Amino acid sequence: MNASEFRRRGKEMVDYVADYLEGIEGRQVFPDVDPGYLRPLIPTTAPQEPETFEAIIEDIEKIIMPGAASPACTELETVMMDWLGKMLQLPEAFLAGEAGEGGGVIQGTASEATLVALLAARTKVTRHLQAASPELTQAAIMEKLVAYASDQAHSSVEKAGLIGGVRLKAIPSDGKFAMRASALQEALERDKAAGLIPFFVVATLGTTSCCSFDNLLEVGPICHKEGLWLHVDAAYAGSAFICPEFRHLLNGVEFADSFNFNPHKWLLVNFDCSAMWVKKRTDLTGAFRLDPVYLRHSHQDSGLITDYRHWQLPLGRRFRSLKMWFVFRMYGVKGLQAYIRKHVQLSHAFEALVRQDTRFEICAEVILGLVCFRLKGSNKLNEALLESINSAKKIHLVPCSLRDRFVLRFAICSRTVELAHVQLAWEHIQEMAATVLRAQGEEKAEIKN
Amino acid sequence: MNASEFRRRGKEMVDYVADYLEGIEGRQVFPDVDPGYLRPLIPTTAPQEPETFEAIIEDIEKIIMPGAASPACTELETVMMDWLGKMLQLPEAFLAGEAGEGGGVIQGTASEATLVALLAARTKVTRHLQAASPELTQAAIMEKLVAYASDQAHSSVEKAGLIGGVRLKAIPSDGKFAMRASALQEALERDKAAGLIPFFVVATLGTTSCCSFDNLLEVGPICHKEGLWLHVDAAYAGSAFICPEFRHLLNGVEFADSFNFNPHKWLLVNFDCSAMWVKKRTDLTGAFRLDPVYLRHSHQDSGLITDYRHWQLPLGRRFRSLKMWFVFRMYGVKGLQAYIRKHVQLSHAFEALVRQDTRFEICAEVILGLVCFRLKGSNKLNEALLESINSAKKIHLVPCSLRDRFVLRFAICSRTVELAHVQLAWEHIQEMAATVLRAQGEEKAEIKN
Repeated sequence: MNASEFRRRGKEMVDYVADYLEGIEGRQVFPDVDPGYLRPLIPTTAPQEPETFEAIIEDIEKIIMPGAASPACTELETVMMDWLGKMLQLPEAFLAGEAGEGGGVIQGTASEATLVALLAARTKVTRHLQAASPELTQAAIMEKLVAYASDQAHSSVEKAGLIGGVRLKAIPSDGKFAMRASALQEALERDKAAGLIPFFVVATLGTTSCCSFDNLLEVGPICHKEGLWLHVDAAYAGSAFICPEFRHLLNGVEFADSFNFNPHKWLLVNFDCSAMWVKKRTDLTGAFRLDPVYLRHSHQDSGLITDYRHWQLPLGRRFRSLKMWFVFRMYGVKGLQAYIRKHVQLSHAFEALVRQDTRFEICAEVILGLVCFRLKGSNKLNEALLESINSAKKIHLVPCSLRDRFVLRFAICSRTVELAHVQLAWEHIQEMAATVLRAQGEEKAEIKN
Repeated sequence: MNASEFRRRGKEMVDYVADYLEGIEGRQVFPDVDPGYLRPLIPTTAPQEPETFEAIIEDIEKIIMPGAASPACTELETVMMDWLGKMLQLPEAFLAGEAGEGGGVIQGTASEATLVALLAARTKVTRHLQAASPELTQAAIMEKLVAYASDQAHSSVEKAGLIGGVRLKAIPSDGKFAMRASALQEALERDKAAGLIPFFVVATLGTTSCCSFDNLLEVGPICHKEGLWLHVDAAYAGSAFICPEFRHLLNGVEFADSFNFNPHKWLLVNFDCSAMWVKKRTDLTGAFRLDPVYLRHSHQDSGLITDYRHWQLPLGRRFRSLKMWFVFRMYGVKGLQAYIRKHVQLSHAFEALVRQDTRFEICAEVILGLVCFRLKGSNKLNEALLESINSAKKIHLVPCSLRDRFVLRFAICSRTVELAHVQLAWEHIQEMAATVLRAQGEEKAEIKN
């Protein structure tokens, strides 16, 4: 949607809200619909081609307003998470469908998704061990629990371990910054021999530092064999999996118990919107449900009625599936794929520019929209380059550390980015580099004299 | 703001956003401001009288845009939480000011605030005990930790205990559904004698069921004496404390370590916005901080730079202080006070109507905007009344259970509610009651025959 259509549609929405408020006394306080009313009213998959704004607004009046905030908020979320799951070709087991045991939920951030998965896994292993040995206390079990993630995993994984009160061990990644079978297996054997209880593994697809991918096809079978909960965190990279040519990066997700990525990062949905799926929704609700028994009902885990408050940390919820619905329909799957492809193309264009300049080096394989690069030379030199780029304030780069090497990260992430912006940015970086290298040369000359 | 002004202002905002997007290439990618730039630019307290929309928009351009999303998002939040703290007459120790050790943060919900407080308390007591006895493991300590809350506390407190992996004990409330000194002290003595370690107490001001108030002036000194973290949860009632005549309900908060209420419940700020204050911000950051040591800097806990990511569960944040800023200025403190007072008056008007009808009884003292009432008679009768009211869909009531009595709750909570609505609702309830009582009479007559 360009700015001029936004002006028109935005103002129509303002009128829609004002009309609603003015006419609110004429509306019923509670909807007439039955549980499950929404799913039959909308398609089972996202549209391939873009739809018009009019068509969407018409559906708001026809499909959402009769279901008011509740149950429409819950039911649209379940169906949108199925749409998105199908866009990613997630295994059927992760979808809610009409009678599935899995399903999706919108969390605020990947941090919360990881924490929720860890807590569910903690509850599951604790109950399992207590069923076999009823004398074991929760504390006695927690003392021995171990979670694992690659040394490249996001700090939110460590935070989840801290909050959950369990130890987290970092698995050394390989030369491509990926967690591999051998390193994981070695850690598991060592810990089991020491009497500890491995229970939870986080595999990262698209790490924050350099967008590396843990080897899911190696890690998955190990978790499956050892009975460990496998959580796959693809916070950034997940959006790319809607393109068939990138879907192979998700292979192995069939071994996971939970999977998460953030449409707010790269799928044009505004912050916050973190999409999380589980294969067995009872694993989540079992960890968080606090209903007294007499409130349970037969449909509770059937897909007919979903109590998302048992799937998350907070109690209250926002109607975040609406923005997914709008985005999926305004762009269509093809539009979203084109958006992802354009960003990946631009990052390869930047990579090619860097490779043409022998003063620079590429520091990690460019797979999606991130290019890790640096001047050949010391960390100090690259820190000076970053400092000069960020002080000029024409572009902004966030650095990372890869095996103690200070690295610059060029991230393609704006909705309106074009090749011209990338070229301008690169020319600017080259200029800054020339200045920094000249200063270094003068410094060296001074030391010699 | 009425609907016609909303139409006008809403459309101006749409244009503002579109203009911003069209002109984005002319803007700098990173702000020029220094840490702490914002506080001197705005008043130290919320305005008493309403301001114009123009004045607020002018400040957006002048004060927020030069600070972009960061640091403006953080700095406005700190100052808004100070404004709000002053509106409640919170003790100085909870304010950030320019060099305070306390301060406020916006969480999503009260559930998250309670959990964050519990985790901070857990970390603090664990470190304290380990400092004295380094051989103690975290698990050995957690096994003995006990948190306490009234039997009227919200289920989110129990959920926080579950997540934090510590036991939670319910303290029996008194005849007015309040936690008192004697019951708490008794539980503490019993648990200490059994070798357990009390560490955390949640006092509720305005319980969900009947808006009762724990006795903070009794509970506070006990927590202080025993060295327990006291968290005060006033999720609903907190908004009322901006009125001097209700401020006494908050007396005793000076004994608390953390305090929380939800402006999204009753202070005209849209969901979600849960305001939380702590006396020592290092208690929170100590529990969640994961920065490597070499990234620490001297201003970190000085109030000059605040890293809110260490104050909460998620990493990402939204710019929620903007809506507080708008609401506080559009209404002024006096406008917000008038809004609270009107609701409390209306609930007393409803209470008076109920008291005039001898078939009904009031079930808990009416203090703010909630009236708990029922037909004199069985739970079955009242369940039938609720069922008939909610099926008619003219009004909607949510029930509760008070000492096993099924009770109806009439909550004044709409922005546009007037006395006429309350009167209509009461007439409707009376009609439904007449029908339900008649049916009961006929049933009894049938049994007799």
